[in-house]
Formats: sequence, structure tokens, C-alpha cells
Amino acid sequence: MGELVRFGVSMDARLLKVLDGLVGRRGYGNRSEAIRDLVRSEHIRDVWEQGGKAVVGTLTLVYDHHVPEIGDRLVGLQHDHGDLVHSTMHVHLSRHTCLEVVVLRGRAARVRALADRLIAARGVKHGQLVATTGEDLA
Amino acid sequence: MGELVRFGVSMDARLLKVLDGLVGRRGYGNRSEAIRDLVRSEHIRDVWEQGGKAVVGTLTLVYDHHVPEIGDRLVGLQHDHGDLVHSTMHVHLSRHTCLEVVVLRGRAARVRALADRLIAARGVKHGQLVATTGEDLA
Amino acid sequence: MGELVRFGVSMDARLLKVLDGLVGRRGYGNRSEAIRDLVRSEHIRDVWEQGGKAVVGTLTLVYDHHVPEIGDRLVGLQHDHGDLVHSTMHVHLSRHTCLEVVVLRGRAARVRALADRLIAARGVKHGQLVATTGEDLA
Amino acid sequence: MGELVRFGVSMDARLLKVLDGLVGRRGYGNRSEAIRDLVRSEHIRDVWEQGGKAVVGTLTLVYDHHVPEIGDRLVGLQHDHGDLVHSTMHVHLSRHTCLEVVVLRGRAARVRALADRLIAARGVKHGQLVATTGEDLA
Repeated sequence: MGELVRFGVSMDARLLKVLDGLVGRRGYGNRSEAIRDLVRSEHIRDVWEQGGKAVVGTLTLVYDHHVPEIGDRLVGLQHDHGDLVHSTMHVHLSRHTCLEVVVLRGRAARVRALADRLIAARGVKHGQLVATTGEDLA
Repeated sequence: MGELVRFGVSMDARLLKVLDGLVGRRGYGNRSEAIRDLVRSEHIRDVWEQGGKAVVGTLTLVYDHHVPEIGDRLVGLQHDHGDLVHSTMHVHLSRHTCLEVVVLRGRAARVRALADRLIAARGVKHGQLVATTGEDLA
Repeated sequence: MGELVRFGVSMDARLLKVLDGLVGRRGYGNRSEAIRDLVRSEHIRDVWEQGGKAVVGTLTLVYDHHVPEIGDRLVGLQHDHGDLVHSTMHVHLSRHTCLEVVVLRGRAARVRALADRLIAARGVKHGQLVATTGEDLA
Repeated sequence: MGELVRFGVSMDARLLKVLDGLVGRRGYGNRSEAIRDLVRSEHIRDVWEQGGKAVVGTLTLVYDHHVPEIGDRLVGLQHDHGDLVHSTMHVHLSRHTCLEVVVLRGRAARVRALADRLIAARGVKHGQLVATTGEDLA
């Protein structure tokens, strides 16, 4: 944590009610926490759109582990881009269906390209990449 | 405009720098304006997810006006749901391609269903619905 | 329209049922139309992510027309980037609230930057950009 | 795997070129695979919008593990909704920052509500929920 700064925000009473509703419904401790989250989310969207910056992403893959060689293919692709793959979690959803979460780290454009190839792998039924960041966002 | 309220927000200096960068790059007048926009956007996402509330949406349709009866089909669908359709703008993008923006107003679930049918109409090449609101968000 | 090509697609019977449900619910004329829409939507997402290509976008702005000089500010920004602005539609949502749809055309990165500035203008309460394309997507 | 069905799709030659470009760039084995992925993604978006159906979601949380009691809070919330939480993976991104992926399973509306509370927890800097499914989507 760095230095904490306090500043004033002005808002119409009706919009403040909207904000307080959101704070209450989601369980934020106070308005500042909710606002900090909104700022960080917007920042992360910006960083990912720029493409060239270092990001962290989590890729969720759902696949049928009975499809021949699917395991080898996914491991192979991840090893070919070992500098991007941080770690992996594997979950058995049903007799057929597995869910794998891959934590990726690198420039947004490369992370996205690897995610596209993993999603496209034969046997993968659904995949989606979440953009986040490893910056020490205060 | 209702009553204006002022309250304090605390934020780590590094995150404040992120916020100020966003304010500068997009041309917000000050931090309060940027924060109000973030709150309103989050609120609108919530309202649309709930489905049952009154919303305003703009639907962008891109279509080939040479496809037989496309015009009749789009006008027909809009008239069948006249209570949802507020107004329409038509733009010629090229010799073949038209863009139409339809402003829709009603409960989110009905607006979405009509948008789906217009997007699915034969000849429509691309369509996308934007969720906004007619609430007097302060 | 160019030359029409026909090719075979193989799909598990259960997934085909999902596709047929979507075709029926949204009112597509047949499976080919639904699939063409899915391909075009994915293509448009790709083009916008690349940033440098020519795109068409529609920007929806909701604003309070009682905010001093809001009209001048929005017109001013649009004129300063006249090569990007194709046309505009204005809708009165309530006594206070206006909705404006601006059709933008140009490279994705520039379109996005102008949209950000219009959304950030004082008095604009909500704005959202829709990515589409003016390509004669067959 | 169920029964495999083959059916014909017609497409303008130019749009087919777009599809083939996407197949090549992402590394799909053939057009059918790409089209099946597009259908499944659209289906999953539909299911999540409806709110009441059983879904699988992965929630990515980034947080500062130095914030007092953050670990207890996250574990507490997950245990209070033990029927929704399937498994968790924890990754150390830096000296301060942790990434946690939580696999959630249940009705979309409940999954979303728990995700909102975890994202709102004090110390969580960014969170995002990915919608997927445990259906044996063929």
C-alpha cells in the first residue's frame, strides 16, 4: 500500500442513492471501495485494449476429455508458450466434461493469441478469457 | 437536477494517478464527472440484467437493401411492436449497405426479444443492441 | 452479392438442437442465416480489436440538455472530427433527457478516441459505442 | 458423444473467406469446429441471460493478501455458500498480489450474486466472472 489520498466527489442526490444501492446489494464496506473497484475495472479494460502492455488473464476451457489426444494437445500448446503460462487448475464437471483454468501472463496481444488457439483446439467446447492485471493496483 | 451532495473518497495515490490519467485522456472536466459516469454505467448494466425494468436501447442494424423485401420486413416488425419503437435513423453506407439505428423503449426483456428478431431478419448482416436508460439519472 | 457457396457442417445431434432452438426463438429463416450472423459478429469483434482498420460505429449518448452549453460542446467536438462523423439522430426521451445517436466512420482507434471524448463531455450521462462495419459483408 | 449429423450451409464466397481466415488464424481444424464453437458460445450467453438455469462460472479475483483478514473473509463467504463453490486455485502474482480462481456451480442468478459479494470484499482489487456451462454440450 502506498500513501492514501482523500478527495471530494460531488454527485446529485439521486445518483448517490443509486451508488448506495449498489454498495449495499454487493456488500461493499463503503462508497470508496465501490468507486475504487469501478476505477480499476475501467483501467484494466483500457490496458487490454491497448494490446502491448503486460497483463494477467485467466482462460476458462471446457472440454470433453474423451476426445482423442485432447490432453496432449492442450499441454503441448501450453508448453510451446511456456513463458506465458503461469499455472493451471483442472476440475471434473461430469463423466465427460472437464473444466480447465489457465492463468496466463504476458503482453495482451500474445495472451489473446494463445487463448484463441487453446479455445480452437479440437475437443474444446467453450472457452473464455478474462482480462485482469498483475499490477499492484492500490 | 436535484440536490448536489459532496462526499469524500479515499484512494491510494497510485490508483488516483490511474484515475487522473483516465480523466485527462478522455477529456473529463474533473474526477467527479468520471466517477459519476462509472456509477451510471454500472447501474445501467444492473438494470438490463434484471430484465423486467423499463429501459431505452438503441439497436444498430447493417443490411443489404437489395435483398428482396428487407425493407418491408424491418418496417413490419417495428410496426408489430409499435409500443417499443421510438424512432429510427437510416444511413447509406455504400451502394449496397445500409445502417439503421432503432431507438427502443420498454421492458428490457421485450426490447431484447424484438432486437433479436430484427437482427435475425433475412438480409440483416449485423446487429447489436446498446443498453441505456431514459431515467433522469442525475 | 457474390457467388454463393455451399459446404457441409457436421454437428452432434444435441448441439444441432441447440442451434435449431436459437433459429426458432430469434426467427431466423434457416440455419445458414443464423450461422452467417455468428460468423459476421465474430469477424467484427476481430476487426475492432485490431484497431487500425476502417470501421463503422454508432455511439449512443444520453444527456441532460439543460446543462449549459452541452449542445455546443457536442456539436463542436463532432465538427472538429468531421471526417469521422457521418450523421446524427436526436431523440427527446423526457423533459430533461435527450438521446443522441452518432454514426462514426474511420479507423477503429480514432473512432474509439472520439467516442471517449463525447462520452466524457460535461452533461453526458451515459454513452456507449457499438462496433459494426461498413464492409459489404456478404 | 451422441449421433453426428451433417447438414449444408450456404454462404457468399466473400463471407466464407472471412470464416476461413478465422479458422486459420485461430488454428481450428476445420470450419465445422469453428461453427460449433460459435453456436456453443451464443447458447451460453443465452442461458446466463435467463438467470434461472444451472450454470458453471469461473470467478477471477485479484487481491492484496496483506489487507487484514482478507483471506478469512474470502474463505468465509465461500463456505457460507458451499453448495455453489466447487473448487479454488490460488496463484501468487507478486509480493503483494494474489490471484484466486473460484469455480462456481449453480443457478446463474445465485452464482452472480455470490460473485458480486466476493468482488466487493475489502482488499479485492479486481474481479470478473466468466459464464460457461457444465452441460455435456456435444
